Amino acid sequence: MHPIHAAVVGATGAVGRELISLLERSPLDIHQLSLFASPGSAGNAINFRGECLPVKALHSRCFAGVDLALFCASKEIAQEWAPPAVASHALVIDNSSAFRMDPNVPLVIPEINPEALAHHRGIIASPNCTTTLMLVALFPLHKECAIERITAATYQAISGAGAKAMCELKRETRAALEEEQYRPQYYPHPLAFNLFTHDSAVDDNGYVEEEIKMMRETHKILRDETIAVHATCVRVPVLRAHSMALHVTFQKPMGQMHALSLLQRAPGVSVSENTAHMPIDASEKSAVLCSRVRQDLFDPRALSLWVVGDQLLKGAALNVLQIAEKIFFI
Amino acid sequence: MHPIHAAVVGATGAVGRELISLLERSPLDIHQLSLFASPGSAGNAINFRGECLPVKALHSRCFAGVDLALFCASKEIAQEWAPPAVASHALVIDNSSAFRMDPNVPLVIPEINPEALAHHRGIIASPNCTTTLMLVALFPLHKECAIERITAATYQAISGAGAKAMCELKRETRAALEEEQYRPQYYPHPLAFNLFTHDSAVDDNGYVEEEIKMMRETHKILRDETIAVHATCVRVPVLRAHSMALHVTFQKPMGQMHALSLLQRAPGVSVSENTAHMPIDASEKSAVLCSRVRQDLFDPRALSLWVVGDQLLKGAALNVLQIAEKIFFI
Repeated sequence: MHPIHAAVVGATGAVGRELISLLERSPLDIHQLSLFASPGSAGNAINFRGECLPVKALHSRCFAGVDLALFCASKEIAQEWAPPAVASHALVIDNSSAFRMDPNVPLVIPEINPEALAHHRGIIASPNCTTTLMLVALFPLHKECAIERITAATYQAISGAGAKAMCELKRETRAALEEEQYRPQYYPHPLAFNLFTHDSAVDDNGYVEEEIKMMRETHKILRDETIAVHATCVRVPVLRAHSMALHVTFQKPMGQMHALSLLQRAPGVSVSENTAHMPIDASEKSAVLCSRVRQDLFDPRALSLWVVGDQLLKGAALNVLQIAEKIFFI
Repeated sequence: MHPIHAAVVGATGAVGRELISLLERSPLDIHQLSLFASPGSAGNAINFRGECLPVKALHSRCFAGVDLALFCASKEIAQEWAPPAVASHALVIDNSSAFRMDPNVPLVIPEINPEALAHHRGIIASPNCTTTLMLVALFPLHKECAIERITAATYQAISGAGAKAMCELKRETRAALEEEQYRPQYYPHPLAFNLFTHDSAVDDNGYVEEEIKMMRETHKILRDETIAVHATCVRVPVLRAHSMALHVTFQKPMGQMHALSLLQRAPGVSVSENTAHMPIDASEKSAVLCSRVRQDLFDPRALSLWVVGDQLLKGAALNVLQIAEKIFFI
């Protein structure tokens, strides 16, 4: 492997900062790291392996010489800047939704479908955070016995909406405790001691985009469009780590003990038989935490699980890095 | 109707205080109200219709002359004190789980099974808060087309655990914002910006008591033990009002528009076609709020709903009062 010139796009965001910190400890042989952010954040500097690296604005020749461009920015930024990065011969790994459903773009969770990496055309997509956490937990079961239906209810942390939303939750909660007025700046509705349906666009059927992503991305990653995926996505006043209640029906009976033993051997999963995990248990952890594996009392083909994971790590930055590591160590 | 001597047991608790406030505005002809609480809270006084009423400790002859004893206390208090109240010729309406599954005790939501009131033997039980909110929303649909399965995930407010838990959430959140140490006094795990599985006892199958209550009480109220009820119950850092994501499968196809029209006509329900409700919308409201009525994209017999309700009102105090009003106006 020749030394890599890597770039992080969205370096000052919540996911970008996690990624830079993961890169510091990665076995990837990075000889140069370029950091990019929006013009408003350019001019900052970020420490990387003892060096203070400048954060620059994206510009027309910024990907010259870059081997690996890791995009942790919005869909719009990815749509605009990934094609020029590819044209400059960089491999793009994108954490946004811009290319996930593009048939020419592999959508990859390395624990599940690393074989899809073989067919990329310069861009590889990392799935939605909730989809990734859910599928890391469910794939070991699906591999053993095909899943017919998933009913999911999510409890998504505010940090999924970025660093600004986290600040707003703190400021607004402080105001609520002091019984002071607070005028929301980031969200249109109160965050403090409240919860609300995921703030993505609503389609004609009443589903929010996040719920549709969980369905479509599951179909693409598991290569089966017949799996019935029904999600309800909710933001909760938690700072970090997403939780979800999953009820899963398999094509054949699946016992609780068998599911537990499959999860115990599964890569990227940490399973508990007796303790129900909380978001604070999963914060800053790499593994997806599974607990409360319960047999449905009315259907031997159904189980439920409680899944908690750090959506900034395995749900985003860590999955992006793991894709890069797979590619560069192939 | 002759004037009633009513008593509230648990008068200083979160539900008791709501009930006293509801009684002030009730058409029940209350000529005397006796207030009881634990010895630690006895000696306090509570305003009722302009009078300052003393809160007393329960004692052996405290129900003498009481017509209606409204229990808003623990299961243990109800088990100990409801029988002497009945022996004193009081009608007991109990909000605890003490008698709910007793075949001689009607378990009643007045919008659903008021006919069960005819067969009481002195004690009537009000269901678990989450069960009540769920069934008020689902019964209008079930009446039209029998429900086969309910998969529920709850987002339960801290006030469901009482006034002390609410204080702890506030104190602990303040400490978290100030980055100060806080030693939990009420719950064994952190509340601030965190969530956790409902803190009731866990059975051999891994279900918490709250989840089993939702199943068993649904069976009793709807008089059908074949309905598959699978719940995951979670406490969230919300001060007031429970939310739940319900996925419901009917015996026959049930269309979204048909469900909406049934909910629009349903007693105790307020339905929204376009807005997803939040706990702050339901706080201190009588109605159970239904929104996000969505057709399952893979099964014409299945729908999902988002239900939010004030668990201290319709989930507890208001249901108790409505039972009393039904009885005394029969």
